Amino acid sequence: MEFIEILGLVAGICTSSSLLPQLIKTVKTKEAQDVSVFMFIVMLTGNSLWIYYGFAKSDLPIISTNFLALGLNIAMLVFKYKYRHR
Amino acid sequence: MEFIEILGLVAGICTSSSLLPQLIKTVKTKEAQDVSVFMFIVMLTGNSLWIYYGFAKSDLPIISTNFLALGLNIAMLVFKYKYRHR
Repeated sequence: MEFIEILGLVAGICTSSSLLPQLIKTVKTKEAQDVSVFMFIVMLTGNSLWIYYGFAKSDLPIISTNFLALGLNIAMLVFKYKYRHR
Repeated sequence: MEFIEILGLVAGICTSSSLLPQLIKTVKTKEAQDVSVFMFIVMLTGNSLWIYYGFAKSDLPIISTNFLALGLNIAMLVFKYKYRHR
């Protein structure tokens, strides 16, 4: 794996894992009022398109990190739904 | 511009503009308690690395959309700081 691929993976881990603190905070406080459902739906669309783009360009960092982000966004939507009455 | 480039731009606009609802909500409610500063700092690092990666790969969708996301994340950090005492 080339240096630039590794750098791309680190970039993708950063932009994807930036969803984690929000996810952890939501689980801990059981509050998700300040989190927009719309934001996550738009992001899911974006992640799916990026995965398609990554496959078309054979770009491993784009494919792998958008799969990661897709999983985290789905998890966040589940918690948003779970804590909807608080 | 090829179809795949346009698709990449749409993907990038989705993942970047997903920051907008959160930004608008924060401005309207003047509340940013559920928004992690750490999340935005990690994202700023990720956006910067993606921009470097995009230039190395001459990938226009990656460069342009990460500049957009970088701007939105900086704006969000400014509002987070502004509403820190609420």
